[in-house]
Parts: sequence; C-alpha cells; structure tokens
Amino acid sequence: MEITRPTLLLNKETAIRNIENMARKAEDLHLNFRPHFKTHQSAEIGEWFRAAGVNCITVSSFTMANYFADAGWNDITIAYSINIPEIPAINELAGRIKLNVLIENKEGLEALQNQITWHTGVFIKIDTGYNRTGIESNRTPLIDELLEGLQKTPLLQFKGFLSHTGHTYQANSTHDIFSRHFDALLKMKALKTRYINDWPDLIVSLGDTPSCSICENFDGVDEIRPGNFVFYDLMQYKLGSCKLTDIAVRMVCPVIATHPSRNEVVIYGGAVHFAKDSIVNIDGKQLFGRIIVSDGDKKVLLDERNYLYALSQEHGILRITPRDFNYFKPGELIEIIPVHSCLTANLMKEYLTTEDEVIKMMPFY
Amino acid sequence: MEITRPTLLLNKETAIRNIENMARKAEDLHLNFRPHFKTHQSAEIGEWFRAAGVNCITVSSFTMANYFADAGWNDITIAYSINIPEIPAINELAGRIKLNVLIENKEGLEALQNQITWHTGVFIKIDTGYNRTGIESNRTPLIDELLEGLQKTPLLQFKGFLSHTGHTYQANSTHDIFSRHFDALLKMKALKTRYINDWPDLIVSLGDTPSCSICENFDGVDEIRPGNFVFYDLMQYKLGSCKLTDIAVRMVCPVIATHPSRNEVVIYGGAVHFAKDSIVNIDGKQLFGRIIVSDGDKKVLLDERNYLYALSQEHGILRITPRDFNYFKPGELIEIIPVHSCLTANLMKEYLTTEDEVIKMMPFY
Repeated sequence: MEITRPTLLLNKETAIRNIENMARKAEDLHLNFRPHFKTHQSAEIGEWFRAAGVNCITVSSFTMANYFADAGWNDITIAYSINIPEIPAINELAGRIKLNVLIENKEGLEALQNQITWHTGVFIKIDTGYNRTGIESNRTPLIDELLEGLQKTPLLQFKGFLSHTGHTYQANSTHDIFSRHFDALLKMKALKTRYINDWPDLIVSLGDTPSCSICENFDGVDEIRPGNFVFYDLMQYKLGSCKLTDIAVRMVCPVIATHPSRNEVVIYGGAVHFAKDSIVNIDGKQLFGRIIVSDGDKKVLLDERNYLYALSQEHGILRITPRDFNYFKPGELIEIIPVHSCLTANLMKEYLTTEDEVIKMMPFY
Repeated sequence: MEITRPTLLLNKETAIRNIENMARKAEDLHLNFRPHFKTHQSAEIGEWFRAAGVNCITVSSFTMANYFADAGWNDITIAYSINIPEIPAINELAGRIKLNVLIENKEGLEALQNQITWHTGVFIKIDTGYNRTGIESNRTPLIDELLEGLQKTPLLQFKGFLSHTGHTYQANSTHDIFSRHFDALLKMKALKTRYINDWPDLIVSLGDTPSCSICENFDGVDEIRPGNFVFYDLMQYKLGSCKLTDIAVRMVCPVIATHPSRNEVVIYGGAVHFAKDSIVNIDGKQLFGRIIVSDGDKKVLLDERNYLYALSQEHGILRITPRDFNYFKPGELIEIIPVHSCLTANLMKEYLTTEDEVIKMMPFY
C-alpha cells in the first residue's frame, strides 16, 4: 500500500518474536501466561498469540472483553475493578465464556452479589504501591470481609489476588524496577501464605511489562499479564525493558515543511496520531518520538539531538540539527518511533504490517 | 440511553447557541464565516451549522474534507499546508467540490503544478507568530515567487493569505490575546496592502477561537475560521474565551473506587477518553478536568480544590477534599468538564446529546 498520510507500521516479525519470547519465559518460569490485549486491541493480532500457545487473555474493559469473546477467546479476565453499571452486560458475557472480574471494595462486592446471574470468577485487586486502585495488602480485615461475602454467593468464585505494579513505569533505573517488583512479590506472597490454607486454589496474578521483561524471580506468582511487550516503545526502551530493535511499531509521516532558520521540520502527524505521552530527552526537554530517515535504501536512526519535540492536533514539530537537516524534504516520508505504543495504537485504529496487510483494531475503546 | 461507561454528553442547545452567536458576530463584522469542523468531526453536527446559514467550511485533512464532501459540503478549505503524497486523491476531490488548499514552500507549489488536474483554490499560509507552519509575513520574495508560480498554472487559482494565530492559546491574559491578534492583523493587513492591486479579489483568512470569541476588531480580514467555539472547554474558559455555561460537552464517568485515606476517587475515564492536555490549577498542579456531581436532582460544580488530577490509560484519579468526599460512591456517575474538547471528541468518536440522540463522528481522523 502506498503511504500518503500518518500510518502506523507494524513489524510483524518483531511482534511475533516478542510474543514468543514472553510465552517462552512464562513457560520456563512455570507461570500461566495471560497477556493483556489492550495494547494491540486487534482480533487478528490475537491470533499471533494463539499460535504461540496462548489460550487465556486479559482486557481492561467490558467492551474489549466482548470484542475478544466475539473473536473466539473464551477465558478472559477484565483486569479493571468492577464497573458496577455494566454488571447486567457482564452477566450476558459471563453466560458464554469463562470470565473473571475484579473487586476492591464492599460496594463492588454487594453489587455483584445482588445482580450476578452466572458463574463468574472474582479476583481481589491488591495495591502493591502504584496507589491507583486496589486494597493495600496489609488491610486484611477488608480482604476477610470480601472473602466472606464471596463465600456466601455461590455464583461468585474467588480466584485469587491480582495486582498491577504500574509504578515500575516511574522507575529511575532497572535496579529500581527490580526493587519495586520484589516489594510487590513480598506483599503478594504474604497474602498467599495467609490465605492458601482456606483457599488452596488461589492464584497470584502480577505482570507489568517492565518487570516481566527484565526480572527472573516470580516467586509465589502463578500468572503474568504483560501487554505492552508485544510492541514495546521508547518508554520501555528508556526503562531498560527492551532493545530498540524490539520495538515493533513506527509511525510513518509525510514531511510538510522545513524551517532551517529555526532548526525545525513540520510533519503530518500530531496529537491525534501519537497521543501526548512524552519522556525526558538528554537536553531536559519533552521527547515525543525518535526519528528514522531514509538514506538511499538504508534506514538511519538519527541521534537524540534530533527528535519529535512538539505536537499540536495534527502537526508534529521535529527539532533537527543542521548536520542532519538535509534528510528532510517536503513530501517525503520519515518514520517516528513512538513513546507509548498503547495510546498511539488506540488512536490509529489500524496497522499496516511490514507484509503490507492492513490490520483493523476494535473500533471503540 | 442508560449510561454505563465513559460517555461524551453534548448539550445540543448550548452548541447551537455557540454556533448562532459566532455566525451573528461574523455577519455583524461583514466577515465570511468558514468554521473549522475538526472539533466536532460530525456530519450531523455540520447540519446545525447549515441551519445557522453556513455554507462553506474548514477542515484539517484530506480525509476530513472527503468525509464532509460526502455529507454534502461543496466549498471546503483544507487549512493544512499541502501534504504532497495526497495530491492524487485531492485531484479526485477537487473534481467534485470547490476546494482550497494551502502552500507555504516551493516544493508544495511545484508538486501542485506538476500533478494538479482540476481547478483548485490556493491560499498562501502565513506565520503570524505561532511558529508552526507558514511563511513569515516579511518574506515577500518567497511570496512573490509562489505567486509567480501560481500565475503560470491556470488550474491553480490564488485565493489569498491564510494564518492561524495559534499562539493565542498560550496567552497569559485576555490582554495578551488582544495583543497577539492585533499583531496578526497588522501583518496580514500589510500583505493585503502590498498585493491587493495585483490580486484585487485576494482574501485574508484568520480565526482562532480565542480571538474570534473576544476581539471585535478584524480590520482587513475577510474570513474567520474558528472551530473549538462550538463546544468550548476549560482551556478556553481559562483563556477568557467563554463562560463555564458556554461549554457544551461533559464526560460522564462511573466511579470505580474511593480512597478517603489519600483524598482520591478513581473513575472509569482515562487517557483513551480524555486525551492528556492539561491546564495549571490554582495549586500549581496539572488539571485534566473540573468535576460536576449530583446532589439530589441538582448538578453541583465542585470548586477547583476538587479536580481530575491524573490519567492513566483508562483510569482517572480525582483529588477530592474531605468536605466533598461524600458525593462519591462506587457505581455512581459523575461528570467531568474536559480541558480540550477537540482531542476528547476525537477519541470518543460519538456523542450522546442531552436530547438522548447518539451522534456519530467520522470513524478515522
């Protein structure tokens, strides 16, 4: 396909290698692999996971669970504390697949107790330090209360404890990722030790991409749920989770204008394509993407002094050194490695693979 | 429709009032009104403009031009410096409607000269200080060169000078908006004076929402192209472009969890719903939205000490004062006034109106 506008290019080979590597790692460590599908949001890419032996998945909304159930997935965890107004819809879905939901408070429990009509698995969401959702692991009186409630409702089957160590994304070093991961392990293991006698089948589920990519110790963990690793991105590269060659997505953008007097190049590609997550560049400024240009038949990754440094709705502005300025001509295409592949993919709604296939994503989030 | 997940609620009456006010202002000032449709991106909302007498529009991409041409608009300016790889597609569109495009460099001109097959209007894009795209107004040798090129190509009809005074969005006060707007007026007027004898029909086109909302002097301007004003948002309110009651969109979000120990409430509504634009709150922190709660049948706007202060992919975190904490219960709905309605609408892809209609937007940007 001829590219004429911002297009999310997906290197299929790299993505499949990322999937196979993570599947192998889970297998080696005797962990159930329940990858998060919110990054790619695509039934077709889901099949690449199935080919790697995956048969259960994680999603982050009822809408997404429904989409992947329609695509033939019948063992799904909605890793999102129960959204009470959606329980009637969840009932319908629980009637056709093996579905797990999450609770973290009495309101969620009671709403499920009052409204659930099908067998549904329930994880208790634990906060291991990310401080977004979940119950702090030492609040065992609340956990006891929820467990008691679950026991009273035969349709609700307690599955175990689930946490997202999302604060590894704010780590300053790989050392810091290890330390946050181990802290999460200790907290989850303490819970397992405390409750395993009464609930011998309880599962401990963890798994952000940084920990799953770099840590080898998952002591006490039964299941991992990384998602971003399928594509990786500059944020993961900066965290040390991947090499640049592991990043499977690039945005192809036409050059619109060159402004040599201020060392700037304007590209067609803005906030509606990339989203606005950034990392800090070597110059202390926000960086929204790294730049790859063509030099004859070769692709050249420019150094960090050249970068996507500003985004408005549909324009991107590149800061370009005088030395590299000649790579840029209006009408030509360049490639940008995005900072956060999940949000970028979510905006683009489709991929063009390196094998020239167009792959659609679920249309609504 | 019962709301169970993040839903963009559109107050139809407010939006129509905003449209009518701006249309009336343009009429009073004898300005052609060519509103920008990138904010709402909806054929159906386009009809509300048509009802207010609008018959020509602005868009920001070929894709959007095509979508609105299919919806019956036959006089469209793509206010985006020409994206050369799309010229073949633009030819097809120029064959069926009155189309204007923009150039700002010789490469764009030459590509049009070589490839254009239909009568197409061409504006020269002027940079009045936003420093994103366009030619600085004093670079008349380059402007002369482009005009000479246009004269040689009968299919390309020079229409005039177009600028987007986007730096009004970074203004620190309404005074500052006036000053940036007047500076743009002076620059555009100088161009008009210089070229009007040779090009007696030339049009000067300006029009960001802040200037069009608060300024009354458009001396030398022939056309305005504001877009955001149809919905407005917190950014515009902060700039002084609108009152809070002029903001026509709100995101309805279910409460997921309450964490009184850290004064936080978690809502279903994150970066994939709101986008990540923020303004600075009274406490110096990033604010992603203001909060409206229900108190019996009444809606109550909470003060700025309560606000949407963090967004991850699908979670929003509200900072809530102890005094107002009781408004929040898991499973209940609250409303958020968004910071940047254009990016929020772009993510949501549909509206629910206060009259309970679902309005779709163009599916891809």
